[in-house]
Amino acid sequence: MAATSWEDSVKSLKGVILDMCGVLYDAGEDGGTPIPGSVEAVKRLRASDLKLRFCTNETQATREKFVAKLQRMGFEISVSEVFSPAPAAVAILKERGLRPHLLVHDDVVPEFDHVEKTNPNCVVIGDAAEKFSYQNLNTAFRVLIGLEDPVLFSLGRGKYYKEDDGLNLDVGVYMKALEYACDVEAEVIGKPAPMFFQKVLDDMGIPSHEAHR
Amino acid sequence: MAATSWEDSVKSLKGVILDMCGVLYDAGEDGGTPIPGSVEAVKRLRASDLKLRFCTNETQATREKFVAKLQRMGFEISVSEVFSPAPAAVAILKERGLRPHLLVHDDVVPEFDHVEKTNPNCVVIGDAAEKFSYQNLNTAFRVLIGLEDPVLFSLGRGKYYKEDDGLNLDVGVYMKALEYACDVEAEVIGKPAPMFFQKVLDDMGIPSHEAHR
Repeated sequence: MAATSWEDSVKSLKGVILDMCGVLYDAGEDGGTPIPGSVEAVKRLRASDLKLRFCTNETQATREKFVAKLQRMGFEISVSEVFSPAPAAVAILKERGLRPHLLVHDDVVPEFDHVEKTNPNCVVIGDAAEKFSYQNLNTAFRVLIGLEDPVLFSLGRGKYYKEDDGLNLDVGVYMKALEYACDVEAEVIGKPAPMFFQKVLDDMGIPSHEAHR
Repeated sequence: MAATSWEDSVKSLKGVILDMCGVLYDAGEDGGTPIPGSVEAVKRLRASDLKLRFCTNETQATREKFVAKLQRMGFEISVSEVFSPAPAAVAILKERGLRPHLLVHDDVVPEFDHVEKTNPNCVVIGDAAEKFSYQNLNTAFRVLIGLEDPVLFSLGRGKYYKEDDGLNLDVGVYMKALEYACDVEAEVIGKPAPMFFQKVLDDMGIPSHEAHR
C-alpha cells in the first residue's frame, strides 16, 4: 500500500480496531485509569461512519467484567465489540475437538465454562499471574509431556506489563518455559497473531487486503 | 581421537569423571537409591590407579549434605572430589566482582554465605523447585531488567528430572523464561558447559586435549 498516501487511506477508511491497555487506559491496582483524551476519541469515532472494534490480550477477567470496568471509566463500549484471546481460544478448541487443561487466571475461567475439560488433550495458558506457581506449571507440563501430540495454546506472547508497583511477567514467559520443557512450539491466540486480527476483520465485514496497520 | 582404539584409550586412561544422578543412584523422595553395582564400581575405580572425580548439577543441597547422603548409600566419596555448579558459581562471582540476587533452593543458599549480595548486579538461578513462585520469579526478573548490563547465571540447563511421583521441571525452563523476558542469554554453570568440565580436569591435573567423552 506504499503507493497510497495517508490522506487517501484516511478517506477510504471503513473501520478502526483499537488496542486498549496502554492506548485507552493505563493499568493499575485500582483497575486502571483512562488516558487523557481517549474517552472523547472513542466518542468521536462512534459518531463517525467508521466501524469500531476493540482488541485486547487481557486474560485476567471475562470480557463482561473487563467491559464493565471500561464503562465505569466512561468509555462507550459493549461486550460484542471486544475481541480477547479467551473466546477465540474457545472457538478453536471446539473446532478442533480439543479438551484443554487450563492454566489461566481464576477470573477468566468462566469463559471456558462450556468447554469439555475431562481427560485433556491440550494445554491452554493465559496471564495466570500468581497462579503460575511451580506446582501449577509442573502440572501443566506433565499433561503436555504426556500427550502423544502435545498441543500448547498461549493467550498472547507478551513478556511483561507495567502495573503501579512495577513490571510483572506476562504469559509469554511461561509459554517459552513450556516450549523448552516439551520441545513444542505454542500456538499463540491473541495479538499479534494474524489469525486473531482476521477474526476481527471478519466480524467487521472488511476483507483483509483492505487492512492497514 | 578417531584413530585411537577403545582398548588403547582404556590403557592410557589417567582418570574418570563420574556423573551421579541416574548413573550412581536414582533420585527419589527418600533421597534416592543406589543403582545396583554402582557402589562396587566406585570401589573398584578407587582401588585402581585412576584419578576419580564426581560431577553433578545437583543444586538442591550443599555439597556437604549431598555427599553425606551418598555416603549413607554406601559410596566411598568425599566433598573435595565432588564438582557441583554452586561452588563454581561462587568462584566466578568473586572473579568478576558480581553480587548476585539468588533464586535457588533454600538448602543450597549456604554455599553463597560468603558472597556479597547487597545491591545485586546479577541474578543466579538454580533448581529452586517450589521456590519458583510467580512472585519470586518476578522479583528476579525485576532485578535483571533493572540492570544496565543484565547478567544471568543458570546452575544447569536441564529441562526436567524424574522423581518418584513423576517428572519435575528443572532450572533450564526458568532460565528460558528469564532469557525471553529480558532479551538476554544466560551463562550456564554446570554440565554440559565446557568451562565446568575444564575446572574438573584442572583439579585432576589432566590437560583437556587428553580428555575423552
